[in-house]
Amino acid sequence: MLPGKPKSKHRSGCPVSISLEAFGDRWSLLIIRDLMVRGYRTFKEFEQSGEGIATNILADRLRNLQASGIITTEADPVDRRKRNYRLTEKGIDLAPVLLELLVWGARHEDTGAPCATIEELAKNREAVLAEVRRRWRDRDATPFLPPFQNRGGGGESR
Amino acid sequence: MLPGKPKSKHRSGCPVSISLEAFGDRWSLLIIRDLMVRGYRTFKEFEQSGEGIATNILADRLRNLQASGIITTEADPVDRRKRNYRLTEKGIDLAPVLLELLVWGARHEDTGAPCATIEELAKNREAVLAEVRRRWRDRDATPFLPPFQNRGGGGESR
Repeated sequence: MLPGKPKSKHRSGCPVSISLEAFGDRWSLLIIRDLMVRGYRTFKEFEQSGEGIATNILADRLRNLQASGIITTEADPVDRRKRNYRLTEKGIDLAPVLLELLVWGARHEDTGAPCATIEELAKNREAVLAEVRRRWRDRDATPFLPPFQNRGGGGESR
Repeated sequence: MLPGKPKSKHRSGCPVSISLEAFGDRWSLLIIRDLMVRGYRTFKEFEQSGEGIATNILADRLRNLQASGIITTEADPVDRRKRNYRLTEKGIDLAPVLLELLVWGARHEDTGAPCATIEELAKNREAVLAEVRRRWRDRDATPFLPPFQNRGGGGESR
């Protein structure tokens, strides 16, 4: 147990269950993805991320992620009056979960991700995770992965 | 892309987003966990798994997981009139996602999982995943992990 872990009431003592209480919905992990691999930092960027999240849902999910200690806000380096969202260390530690979701989805569903790219990521798991973490530490907002084009025809990917 | 991957409409082409459409809620991954590491196979077992899922929600989630090709049903080996749930190959391929969720939750939240046990699992990632897959292939229902006791005081873990 890391120092500062919250003590609280959960539906069970299982770590999987408790993790899902923090981000087990259809949107939270997409916000985490946008922060982690697309270099997004603002409400507007999340809103326009191409998945069609409603403004009130986005605001609610950001609030929950902040309450769970997964994201935080900090002053924009250029305009100090503006606040940007940023993953905490607890948040960036979700990188392996995201990577496994990406690999699973690309293998089993008809996605816009080129399979060769994804298999490459899966093969270089440790290097990929180290680079994602480096960008987070250095506040390097260069996107690690581009948004994938939609292959199914529904929705849009910007 | 594996043969037989469904072509369909999604909110975006991102594999993470598409994965979350299949099981991005607070319950589906718990059902997958129960099948994968607890050896549960019946509606009654899922219902009594200690997380307090409502019967109608459970029925709905099982239907969705089956429609997504993550679980299937098969005749009980003893009583052929009974149907048991079983993970498909697509379902067992979620083992790495579950393992990462388990590790993350145990590190960052106050759970009932002994940290030493979890760090051991994290260190032996490949062996753990191979053993989980072997039990699935051999229909070996011996629980891989015990239900973790609740540490926070709320809910119950049976």
